Amino acid sequence: MNYQNAFADAVRRVKAEGRYRVFADLLRRKGEFPVARWRSPDGNVRDVTVWCSNDYLGMGQVPCVVESMKKAIDDVGSGAGGTRNISGTTHYHVELERSLADLHRKDGALLFTSGYIANEATLSTLGKILPGLIMFSDELNHASMIEGVKGARCEKRIWRHNDVAHLEELLAAAPADAPKVIAFESVYSMDGDIGPIEAVCDLAEKYNALTYLDEVHAVGLYGLRGAGIAERDGLMHRVDIIEGTLGKAFGVMGGYIAADGAICDAIRSMAPGFIFTTALPPALAAGARASVEYLKSAHHLREQHQERAATLKARLNGAGFPVLESSVTHIVPVHVGDPVLCKRISDMLLDDHGIYVQPINYPTVPRGTERLRLTPTPLHTDAMFDTLIEALDDVWQRASEQTGVARA
Amino acid sequence: MNYQNAFADAVRRVKAEGRYRVFADLLRRKGEFPVARWRSPDGNVRDVTVWCSNDYLGMGQVPCVVESMKKAIDDVGSGAGGTRNISGTTHYHVELERSLADLHRKDGALLFTSGYIANEATLSTLGKILPGLIMFSDELNHASMIEGVKGARCEKRIWRHNDVAHLEELLAAAPADAPKVIAFESVYSMDGDIGPIEAVCDLAEKYNALTYLDEVHAVGLYGLRGAGIAERDGLMHRVDIIEGTLGKAFGVMGGYIAADGAICDAIRSMAPGFIFTTALPPALAAGARASVEYLKSAHHLREQHQERAATLKARLNGAGFPVLESSVTHIVPVHVGDPVLCKRISDMLLDDHGIYVQPINYPTVPRGTERLRLTPTPLHTDAMFDTLIEALDDVWQRASEQTGVARA
Ligand SMILES: Cc1ncc(COP(=O)(O)O)c(C=O)c1O
Ligand SMILES: Cc1ncc(COP(=O)(O)O)c(C=O)c1O
Repeated sequence: MNYQNAFADAVRRVKAEGRYRVFADLLRRKGEFPVARWRSPDGNVRDVTVWCSNDYLGMGQVPCVVESMKKAIDDVGSGAGGTRNISGTTHYHVELERSLADLHRKDGALLFTSGYIANEATLSTLGKILPGLIMFSDELNHASMIEGVKGARCEKRIWRHNDVAHLEELLAAAPADAPKVIAFESVYSMDGDIGPIEAVCDLAEKYNALTYLDEVHAVGLYGLRGAGIAERDGLMHRVDIIEGTLGKAFGVMGGYIAADGAICDAIRSMAPGFIFTTALPPALAAGARASVEYLKSAHHLREQHQERAATLKARLNGAGFPVLESSVTHIVPVHVGDPVLCKRISDMLLDDHGIYVQPINYPTVPRGTERLRLTPTPLHTDAMFDTLIEALDDVWQRASEQTGVARA
Repeated sequence: MNYQNAFADAVRRVKAEGRYRVFADLLRRKGEFPVARWRSPDGNVRDVTVWCSNDYLGMGQVPCVVESMKKAIDDVGSGAGGTRNISGTTHYHVELERSLADLHRKDGALLFTSGYIANEATLSTLGKILPGLIMFSDELNHASMIEGVKGARCEKRIWRHNDVAHLEELLAAAPADAPKVIAFESVYSMDGDIGPIEAVCDLAEKYNALTYLDEVHAVGLYGLRGAGIAERDGLMHRVDIIEGTLGKAFGVMGGYIAADGAICDAIRSMAPGFIFTTALPPALAAGARASVEYLKSAHHLREQHQERAATLKARLNGAGFPVLESSVTHIVPVHVGDPVLCKRISDMLLDDHGIYVQPINYPTVPRGTERLRLTPTPLHTDAMFDTLIEALDDVWQRASEQTGVARA
């Protein structure tokens, strides 16, 4: 057994599949988002416009958020210094959990260090709490939900993406008295489509299942107070467990679930991913709470956000750059359809035009559906739209010629 | 299936086992650590002395750390805004990874959102990279390593705690050509004992196994530059993968591995827990880097820390409060031996004396070994030691009488 070769081979395989990633070395500029400084591999630093951030509203630079963080640091220092149980709970954590419970109109909320861990820890712990559990998981669920479902070590059924007829088939075929959890998302982040929340809740009632909804790409962005798609559609009370992140629209970091008191208490008491890890720094809890509270009443930002996304889609389609039809949300995926072309376009946009948009290739999306995933924020101006479209016009043609891949 | 009952029952079982946790609602005071404000359940706020923080050196309030964080917030805002691959890598992350690789004298380092995720993601991904892997795991390994070993979905062998003869038996019994990983810790956080690093490395050589060492409770604290026990003992170059946290002695949050470039690159490219989650906020990376760099040359702090721990142990033993003999480190576990008594002593220390030390009961430690786990820092003064011992004298006797549990 030669370990060095084994690791080198693993990397070679990743490269051969065209999914080796080189991270862009960035520094945003507070107050000038979406502009950032980019350090190219040769060490030069230049300004670029970021087109693929999940800080969907630019909350990462809003004064009340950054000032809350700095104030908390001045008050209590940098870290929590312990797990939630062993000296790591601060009043900032307590208040943030209350804000989140209130946001989703639930009894309780439970903070995790990330949305990833919130999914992984909660779903896997449901398997321990509910013996005989059968998990019904949408086939396009996020990696963190897939890990959680695996960790639950229970039976699972994968339903075809957003296909409630298929879900019902699977539910009907399962023993009536077995505990059931239906796990799905509201906004799917790569296609920009939306899960059928109402129909799923109807089925959950009919077949006595719990519903678990990942609103990671919707919290802060939809609904009158920014609680997500379930709020927008008047369905929040029908979803048993809502999961969200503090790291995307809220602009900070961390994850959570909001649910019944007993559910939160059981997960809190039993989930290793919640129990055995240092709590979020107080400053993150303070900043996230400021952001959540700010967005409860900043509906104008959500409207601007939707306007920007709709306008960009119209302009791209008008200019012959096909936006995936699936998208009914703020996510603007432009179809490329080839991994090499996709990467080339992205590289040329960055090098020649100072436009940064990461290519999205297999395995994040199926082969043949490679894309540029654009996320316009309220801070992306019409002038930036012009520049983007001119740049795409310039590079797409050249990239097609260089790679020999025809424009889709 | 009644879900509400199922969750309520789960909580009832936790309560019946005496392991229901009520979190202490705290606010430290920057500049006055280990003093903190404690909000009691009735809402009153009073000052308490924290005796159970894992901010072992009080780095959470050191000016260079907090100022680096605030400066980063002023510069780039609150969050990373994306995963490491999709707009979430900042120059702070790049620099921190370099600092950590240098700390451990390794080719590379890879940041995770927590030490928990570093263990979970790395160990489980080793299972994918090394087909046929057999994992050799110390029986007292941390929950996050256990989850990682489970996630690797490979064969595993559990060796008796720190028992290298048993480890060798298991290694010898395994097929010679199977890939093998030996996973263990340097400082075990509940007993304060140390893993047999040299002997494990010898066995790893003999049986061609990789070594994976969790130095979470040692980084910052041992070795000439704070790289941990392996550095102190001149063994760092013999350990293949060193895992650490930025949330304990370094006073911030986050986790990492340091290893060969190819190992880091393979994990970086394949671990869902690394790939599919928002990157650490730039401010945390900046604060952690400041702390790591500061501690590379702050050996006096490590010496003060050891002196404080040794003095406290001597004083407790002298006063008839038995410190577990296992501890050869900065962790000072005082044997109580009964969960109810342990909790009562802890409650009375807090209520009557303003001393906060969380009781450590089953399942964190085996039944019958319940304890108070004290973590004196360089900022705990002789006067605080006096107060602690007087308080223990006062409450232990009363708590014994109230609970009917004799003093051990
Ligand atoms: C659908 C979905 N759920 C969960 C997560 C994880 O959230 P976080 O970034 O807070 O770990 C992500 C992205 O990272 C996601 O896209
Ligand atoms: C031995 C050990 N490893 C890993 C961890 C996890 O580190 P973190 O708190 O950074 O998640 C902990 C404690 O939390 C620990 O005690």
